[in-house]
Amino acid sequence: MRPMRQTFDESADRSFGPRHVPLIREAMRSQGLDGFLVPHEDEHQNEYLPAANDRLAWATGFTGSAGAAVILRDKAAVFVDGRYTLQVRDQVDPGVFEIRDLVDGGVPAYLEQAARAGEKIGYDPRLHSPDALERLRKAAAKAGAELRPVTPNPLDQAWGEARPPQPAAPVVPHPLAYAGEESAAKRARVGEALGQLGADAAVLTAPASLAWLFNIRGGDVIRSPLPLGQAILRKDGTARLFLDPAKVTPDLPAWLGNQVSLETPEDLPAALASLKGQRVAVDPAQSSAWYFEALAAGGAEAVRIEDPCVLPRACKNPVEIEGARAAHVRDGAALTRFLHWLGTEGQETPPDEVTAVARLEAFREATGALKDLSFDTIAGAAGNGAIVHYRPTTRLNRRAEKGSLMLIDSGAQYLDGTTDVTRTVAIGEPTAEMRERFTLVLKGHLALGRVRFPPGTTGSALDALARMALWRHGLDYDHGTGHGVGSYLGVHEGPQRISKAPSSVALRPGMIISNEPGYYKEGAYGIRIENLQVVTPAEAIPGGERPMHGFETLTLAPIDRRLVVTEMLTPEERAQLDAYHARVREVVGPQVEPEVRAWLEAATAPL
Amino acid sequence: MRPMRQTFDESADRSFGPRHVPLIREAMRSQGLDGFLVPHEDEHQNEYLPAANDRLAWATGFTGSAGAAVILRDKAAVFVDGRYTLQVRDQVDPGVFEIRDLVDGGVPAYLEQAARAGEKIGYDPRLHSPDALERLRKAAAKAGAELRPVTPNPLDQAWGEARPPQPAAPVVPHPLAYAGEESAAKRARVGEALGQLGADAAVLTAPASLAWLFNIRGGDVIRSPLPLGQAILRKDGTARLFLDPAKVTPDLPAWLGNQVSLETPEDLPAALASLKGQRVAVDPAQSSAWYFEALAAGGAEAVRIEDPCVLPRACKNPVEIEGARAAHVRDGAALTRFLHWLGTEGQETPPDEVTAVARLEAFREATGALKDLSFDTIAGAAGNGAIVHYRPTTRLNRRAEKGSLMLIDSGAQYLDGTTDVTRTVAIGEPTAEMRERFTLVLKGHLALGRVRFPPGTTGSALDALARMALWRHGLDYDHGTGHGVGSYLGVHEGPQRISKAPSSVALRPGMIISNEPGYYKEGAYGIRIENLQVVTPAEAIPGGERPMHGFETLTLAPIDRRLVVTEMLTPEERAQLDAYHARVREVVGPQVEPEVRAWLEAATAPL
Repeated sequence: MRPMRQTFDESADRSFGPRHVPLIREAMRSQGLDGFLVPHEDEHQNEYLPAANDRLAWATGFTGSAGAAVILRDKAAVFVDGRYTLQVRDQVDPGVFEIRDLVDGGVPAYLEQAARAGEKIGYDPRLHSPDALERLRKAAAKAGAELRPVTPNPLDQAWGEARPPQPAAPVVPHPLAYAGEESAAKRARVGEALGQLGADAAVLTAPASLAWLFNIRGGDVIRSPLPLGQAILRKDGTARLFLDPAKVTPDLPAWLGNQVSLETPEDLPAALASLKGQRVAVDPAQSSAWYFEALAAGGAEAVRIEDPCVLPRACKNPVEIEGARAAHVRDGAALTRFLHWLGTEGQETPPDEVTAVARLEAFREATGALKDLSFDTIAGAAGNGAIVHYRPTTRLNRRAEKGSLMLIDSGAQYLDGTTDVTRTVAIGEPTAEMRERFTLVLKGHLALGRVRFPPGTTGSALDALARMALWRHGLDYDHGTGHGVGSYLGVHEGPQRISKAPSSVALRPGMIISNEPGYYKEGAYGIRIENLQVVTPAEAIPGGERPMHGFETLTLAPIDRRLVVTEMLTPEERAQLDAYHARVREVVGPQVEPEVRAWLEAATAPL
Repeated sequence: MRPMRQTFDESADRSFGPRHVPLIREAMRSQGLDGFLVPHEDEHQNEYLPAANDRLAWATGFTGSAGAAVILRDKAAVFVDGRYTLQVRDQVDPGVFEIRDLVDGGVPAYLEQAARAGEKIGYDPRLHSPDALERLRKAAAKAGAELRPVTPNPLDQAWGEARPPQPAAPVVPHPLAYAGEESAAKRARVGEALGQLGADAAVLTAPASLAWLFNIRGGDVIRSPLPLGQAILRKDGTARLFLDPAKVTPDLPAWLGNQVSLETPEDLPAALASLKGQRVAVDPAQSSAWYFEALAAGGAEAVRIEDPCVLPRACKNPVEIEGARAAHVRDGAALTRFLHWLGTEGQETPPDEVTAVARLEAFREATGALKDLSFDTIAGAAGNGAIVHYRPTTRLNRRAEKGSLMLIDSGAQYLDGTTDVTRTVAIGEPTAEMRERFTLVLKGHLALGRVRFPPGTTGSALDALARMALWRHGLDYDHGTGHGVGSYLGVHEGPQRISKAPSSVALRPGMIISNEPGYYKEGAYGIRIENLQVVTPAEAIPGGERPMHGFETLTLAPIDRRLVVTEMLTPEERAQLDAYHARVREVVGPQVEPEVRAWLEAATAPL
């Protein structure tokens, strides 16, 4: 049997700071540095990092998905945002690191106050975006200190032999049956768009862009099939792709064709220098200051342009959408088997979180199509469900109790699509408050599911629809309502999102986005209902005048009817939930065993 | 009897271009210019202009509230936005002016293409914001032409004797019973805020800011009690106020007190020069390039900071809110008398638009408290109601017909508050389509009226609530949903607004904002339902966890029940409209005559 994909270990702990900071300071000293900047981001500016690049965790013990640290000679600070204020106190030794807010002032404010005149503070130019670096440079200058680019990275020196190797997962073709468009066609249209923007070429560093543009997938980053590398795309559609030769599989060169030269990362600096005199697009949100400096040093003009693959990648083509539908039927059947188990056996003998995670992974594994989870499953029993970024570990594992809720947020990577779904299940008899608040969350989820909207509408314009029922009762949730999702790629994929933060990105046909309002009662329980939905083309509505977009719901799994207060729903909301459940029953029912099917019939019966 | 305030004349016509452009070209030639830029904005960057400053209308014939023109030696163009594409074709002679889009490329794109190398194009630096000027300068440079500041303005020279005199309406104290806060207190807190931003002083040029800060009102700009002038506010709360001596009323100096020196506009340049060495706040959205240049020339450091009066002015104090309530009771009674007339006599003998406007003005005049209309009343019969920026004129005047709708958008200026209200009334029997679409607009209006929302929420986050019912039926409207309103000041007042455009301005307690969704069927009818509402403080909601803001509806007048399809409303919506009507009946009923009251009883009966 395959070992479980998800583990319940902790990859870092409070001893990391006391053990590793002295080593880093020694390496700093040997380079004549008085300080060193440690961002969470790695060379590829990705959300998830390979273990070899999780420098912030190694230095501090903190494993959140965003943050930074500053290590000076005699003091140090770690910076996290509001999501991680509890976690950071659990993971970081306050005797080594002062804990500060990443957003409010952040690293620049700290530098301004803590650095001293004449100090030299090192940074690794491959790890910082040019804009962030500029802010840091100004802050250091105010203190009379100087930022200095350093090679090698003193933290990497300190890490030494203990550092895991760089990932070298094989890079394989992603067949047309899943990708839906030839790489040559993608390169031609993206190249043409570049030309129209007045650029001769683009430097691409986002692994998801490489994966999409060349129709390839890798495995360098856990939970997503991303190939780490770089590329230069010319406006004529030809390209140079830089990959570690250890990752190149035999089929790859032929798959890439003769318009794409396959080269090594060592060839990249010379390739950038060869762009002398050309206008080269670089995305400052995706590519570090190093690229801008390398292009400038080589005599090219670096133009700040959003990665030209971002928008075409976000708008899925018909083959990708059909793949997403198929993936969601498969995934919905696995999740329904799990919900059946939790709704029957799990009611008798409530499971602990680790067991629930393992069960769900086993059902997904049994599909035979699982390539990976799309993120570590969150199973939060009772109060753990109220911790939005919770991940069960052996240490934190908790058994569900009767009269409580369990929140399960999970997803899978299949060749034909990426899934992400959250269900909240009553264990035993829920309280009236749990049911009322679940129903308020449901009303928001339904409102965002049925909305029609004109072309040009952004996700931030729709966010309030998912919150208005909660707001009227003095409740809210402190996270976004929806994030974009890739096609067998990252489970978080921009540029679209649905959130309170202003956005200028319109929702376009083919974009897949989550719909996940929630409610969290600290120490008691968490509620979240999440489906993925795809933006449908603007269509005429009978009797209307203007074509409107809408959403097609992709996720197929029952929503716990025992948590719904039917009288709180309008007739329209009730009909909408009943119709969704009928669809789940019709599509998923034939996929599952008779015993599960019988349970599903009841679980999806009209209210 | 007082003559009517609103007139039905047209202040400009198609002959203006052919008659005036040759005069302007002559003045250009005498100054050695090859072209001249004519923005809509005047020296005070106001929405409404005194006749003496409506240079764009005099040059072109176009009277819209936004636009621009460029006059070159042998060609000219006028620029308007999408709201005015029909109107501009009606008002401007296409033989003189090419008609172009203000937003799509606008003046800069035209300059880039139409100007020739070596040409000198004049502009009046008092009329252009620094940012707009910078874009124009760059565009001219691309064509090899040069922008040149000129004094005197050649258009003013061409206008000559025919130009109306500058307004000189008396500036009077605005008593504390209406203002609610002493000027000294306002100056102290705004001055302190300036100091915290690191500024020594601010230059204030927005007439509404002068009116608010010094508790004064004027009459220089039609439909709003604005005093044109300038001020310098120091961080210690003392100030220099620059007003034409002809406007100064005897009480004014004592009212301003000894911390405010009253000076003349001629003193302003020397006053700016006296700020040498200081950091001076100037708002580039309110103050023209001239101020930045004058400060720089005098040795001061001009800092771009939003006019520090904008936000405190927008958040009305308790006295202003109480005044707004009283103004709306008075105005609601006048409007109810009008609606009674239109709902009885007007049904028998449908009036024309001009008659309706006159009737409504007469009812408002009869309150004895009317200081002015807050804008020219829009009465749009049938297809005229579908023209969003319609203003009835003798030429366009149209009689209502049975089986049609009349849209009436109007407002008043009272000492205690400014009103703005739209009602749509059925004349005779409305069609099923009219009733269905009215009900969809009503659903949006009600949703935006009852929403609760957390601190930090912007108007753009709430806009979709007013549209979602229309969107579901393939319908929408092409204007914002809400604008801020002043307290006996401008009927359009920022910074808050409710619209599709992204905004970073949170709705705060005391802000007054309109709620005015609509639907327009070109050539057939227009529907709009508009109330003003004030943001209430964040309050605990029973059973909730987080304090939430809400809206208190200020406007009190019946909504035409004959246009409501009751079955399309949810029980919550129906109860909300019934409760609103009950409030109108209780508050306005005692204010009106028995005959009107009897009609109001029926007009506000539960659905």
